[in-house]
Amino acid sequence: MRKSILIFSVIFLSVSMAAKSRIVTVDIDSRILGCVKTTSVYLPDGYDENTGDKYPVLYLLHGLGGTHETWKEYGMQTVCDLHLAAGLAKPMIIVMPDASGVNPNHRGRNSGYANRPGWNYEDFFFQELVPAVEQEFRIQGDREHRAVAGLSMGGHGSALFAMYHPEYFSSAYLMSARLSGVPGVSDDRTEDYVEMLREYEFTRVFPQMSDKELAEIAKVRWFLDCGDDDYLLDGTLTLFSQMRSKGIPAELRVRNGAHNRHYWIESLPVALTFVSAGFTE
Amino acid sequence: MRKSILIFSVIFLSVSMAAKSRIVTVDIDSRILGCVKTTSVYLPDGYDENTGDKYPVLYLLHGLGGTHETWKEYGMQTVCDLHLAAGLAKPMIIVMPDASGVNPNHRGRNSGYANRPGWNYEDFFFQELVPAVEQEFRIQGDREHRAVAGLSMGGHGSALFAMYHPEYFSSAYLMSARLSGVPGVSDDRTEDYVEMLREYEFTRVFPQMSDKELAEIAKVRWFLDCGDDDYLLDGTLTLFSQMRSKGIPAELRVRNGAHNRHYWIESLPVALTFVSAGFTE
Amino acid sequence: MRKSILIFSVIFLSVSMAAKSRIVTVDIDSRILGCVKTTSVYLPDGYDENTGDKYPVLYLLHGLGGTHETWKEYGMQTVCDLHLAAGLAKPMIIVMPDASGVNPNHRGRNSGYANRPGWNYEDFFFQELVPAVEQEFRIQGDREHRAVAGLSMGGHGSALFAMYHPEYFSSAYLMSARLSGVPGVSDDRTEDYVEMLREYEFTRVFPQMSDKELAEIAKVRWFLDCGDDDYLLDGTLTLFSQMRSKGIPAELRVRNGAHNRHYWIESLPVALTFVSAGFTE
Amino acid sequence: MRKSILIFSVIFLSVSMAAKSRIVTVDIDSRILGCVKTTSVYLPDGYDENTGDKYPVLYLLHGLGGTHETWKEYGMQTVCDLHLAAGLAKPMIIVMPDASGVNPNHRGRNSGYANRPGWNYEDFFFQELVPAVEQEFRIQGDREHRAVAGLSMGGHGSALFAMYHPEYFSSAYLMSARLSGVPGVSDDRTEDYVEMLREYEFTRVFPQMSDKELAEIAKVRWFLDCGDDDYLLDGTLTLFSQMRSKGIPAELRVRNGAHNRHYWIESLPVALTFVSAGFTE
Repeated sequence: MRKSILIFSVIFLSVSMAAKSRIVTVDIDSRILGCVKTTSVYLPDGYDENTGDKYPVLYLLHGLGGTHETWKEYGMQTVCDLHLAAGLAKPMIIVMPDASGVNPNHRGRNSGYANRPGWNYEDFFFQELVPAVEQEFRIQGDREHRAVAGLSMGGHGSALFAMYHPEYFSSAYLMSARLSGVPGVSDDRTEDYVEMLREYEFTRVFPQMSDKELAEIAKVRWFLDCGDDDYLLDGTLTLFSQMRSKGIPAELRVRNGAHNRHYWIESLPVALTFVSAGFTE
Repeated sequence: MRKSILIFSVIFLSVSMAAKSRIVTVDIDSRILGCVKTTSVYLPDGYDENTGDKYPVLYLLHGLGGTHETWKEYGMQTVCDLHLAAGLAKPMIIVMPDASGVNPNHRGRNSGYANRPGWNYEDFFFQELVPAVEQEFRIQGDREHRAVAGLSMGGHGSALFAMYHPEYFSSAYLMSARLSGVPGVSDDRTEDYVEMLREYEFTRVFPQMSDKELAEIAKVRWFLDCGDDDYLLDGTLTLFSQMRSKGIPAELRVRNGAHNRHYWIESLPVALTFVSAGFTE
Repeated sequence: MRKSILIFSVIFLSVSMAAKSRIVTVDIDSRILGCVKTTSVYLPDGYDENTGDKYPVLYLLHGLGGTHETWKEYGMQTVCDLHLAAGLAKPMIIVMPDASGVNPNHRGRNSGYANRPGWNYEDFFFQELVPAVEQEFRIQGDREHRAVAGLSMGGHGSALFAMYHPEYFSSAYLMSARLSGVPGVSDDRTEDYVEMLREYEFTRVFPQMSDKELAEIAKVRWFLDCGDDDYLLDGTLTLFSQMRSKGIPAELRVRNGAHNRHYWIESLPVALTFVSAGFTE
Repeated sequence: MRKSILIFSVIFLSVSMAAKSRIVTVDIDSRILGCVKTTSVYLPDGYDENTGDKYPVLYLLHGLGGTHETWKEYGMQTVCDLHLAAGLAKPMIIVMPDASGVNPNHRGRNSGYANRPGWNYEDFFFQELVPAVEQEFRIQGDREHRAVAGLSMGGHGSALFAMYHPEYFSSAYLMSARLSGVPGVSDDRTEDYVEMLREYEFTRVFPQMSDKELAEIAKVRWFLDCGDDDYLLDGTLTLFSQMRSKGIPAELRVRNGAHNRHYWIESLPVALTFVSAGFTE
């Protein structure tokens, strides 16, 4: 009995170690931002072997105080490996940009994903990062195979990108997003960041959108996900109701949880499956 | 306050009622079986509007004592509507064949999905049902967009179809499948059915397969799913170990549950997501 | 190999068939309602053997158009058996009252769980049903071991019972509850029922409660659960926000789903676990 | 609108910050081990206020290479806070012992939870740690309110403690436990550790247990939980079958996952609920 068990063990091990995904980094010398920004890129198992294949792409955004390495630190690689290996999502490339300020130790310019005076991050993203990354890696590069997701400030960024650039994304997945309320300036939150949130408070901005804008936004597949103990829950619930009342289909999930990495690492597989089903053929 | 709430309610209602999937039936006059067999077919929301679109297909098999209506009685339509509307699976056509005997009240020929003397169901399925259905409906009709799933005797049938006809299916999802053990004849189980199980006891048959057969079987994406209180669990665990030991990737899930519709209706969304991710582009 | 498998199968079967729960009915000749009301009662595995034990109790309410048999028809027995056997909830007695009108074919008096002119169901429940049932069966019968749950109209009833009689219940679990909006009269909804909803629209009534009432309500453990495609979702979200803003702890969950039995049968195990953790020692 | 939203945000924040659990450490000067061992102890929200209350206790064991701080590093505090606050488990004290060698940098004596020559950890646990901890904190301290759980080597330890000392525990929850197979000596695994596994290989040891031992073991509530990509899965499946075949009730779950912290942090809430339902009244 023990002998056969040992053999199984060895074989299981080889199976579970077969996933050869890797996370690489790319440096982009940004003319728009005036500095070099590093981006982390998850390449799925098989990327190096199937050199004739192109892949869909998910842009995965970090929250306030994070960097391009935050999702990696949360353990996204293991979670993605298993979920892809399980066949519950399509093989995809996952790009994790960096929205922190120039100096990693100086958050002075950490102002979210929108354009701000002197720090046009939104322009950087669409004019420099997306073209650079999609050329560097074998990415299909059309709307039908591009999605965006993010947590907290990155959930806000996902809303921003997919509402103002809906022609870029087939799906948007917002985790614990900051969608309503403008907090005060604090150690963590610069005046610039607070001002950005005031300008793009989506529960206020969304209801003002024109029918033409809404028609485009409706083409994106939306998913809102927030824990019931999250202090930002109200924004998610309000925007969801607003979207539905405007006839824009959206998914909503509220699990047990608060504003932390434990919630987000459990949301990630759901996001992978959701964006996968939107990668049309 | 109440006014706005009423408006929301009305709108929500219209959203949730928007799914216009339907289940139709098709009668196939089978030369092979010598009788007419009715098949239920789930057509997803949008099928009637998007007349230029073709769809992937899932063959969904019932268990011992069931008919083409069993999955419908379990509530598959609601579950599929919601899961597809949630974007957690791709729009697909779901075909539910009937493996009961000629006379609905006479189970004498309810012998599973394999060929039996005088009742070549397997031939009927591949030579008559699949061609008829895939011509009648807008089905893509290639291996990359065809999957099979089933419960109990239908899980056995899914294993049978995907192991002996792997060129037909990209994915196979086995729920509470009868994969080991040969029960005695009883009120429910005819001698013919028991004999069929003896011939195709997969925990015995699978280890004898040739390397060439295994190479083909490995191209199918496999998912085994069984409750921890299911009296058939042992077959699932054994076949899973055998498949892994032969280097054939497979997923395994064991949730809380026994051999009943409550377990299967919870497995169905997982199956939809799993086969969707295998519908390649 | 096959021999040992057969043995396992037999043993598994005996394990899964070991649960000897049963559902019995009790007829209560109600002076208050002026008719006989039948109640279904789930007695857990072990009830007949452990004759020295008393059990906690969950009152489980049906929705509009239902009867004391509705939860049984949904399959509550299997789901409860498995969840209790799994040790994920405490053994408990589950009482399923009947809030349908006198004549089962005449819904004229199906007016929810509140007192109405000529149909004082709330009085019946607290003055007749609870005492009768808790005497008939070995129920602990104190607040610490009593909970209420229900779906749709029964979710409304659960809110009603636990807000106006908080001294009776340690926990309340509301599934897809009607908590806001007053629908028009229809085939299903009598004038009396609509009038009752108008009187007890909780998103309007709750904010008017006194601090003293709120202090009692806060002693109940609250759980609100509703599908994201449910046309009644807005009431759940609004009441949850109102409760939190009044400092009353509550849980919220939103899964994928609409207003149907598939959602509720998946909520039931969560409810069992939640009320179990509130059955203090 | 924005005003009310801001108010909600503030209130939500106060709710989610209300949990005042804390993790403290206790040093035990062990005569048996000949050194000081530090233990981490999770005290739930309310412990400091409800000074008249005693609590049930869960012993939560780390894996090979871990210490008393490993579960803390995995984020157990947040996960437990939320799950307890959600009312899905009872308030409990969670004790995290340290089974690493004397010198934190020297793993030479990291030999699991059993007695080894010169390192009688099992004796230390039952004769010194349990009495010391249960005296230091307000722990109920009887079998009905004591449980054990652990991951990998700690899953092995949980099996060891609950099989050889069943009078101590009402529940045992094994995560990704090493239950079969004896690996070779390596950088991580000392000769002593390998020898211990050889002596206590449960798929070999368990079938040899006497009826008297089995009768005691059957009084413990068992739960086995392992990922389908875990290289140790086979041991879990085999022991589960062995236990069932001996008539010992046990739960089994197999989710998607491998041998890592992502799997265990998702198992933890299930474990809390399971052991809670076993804390009898």
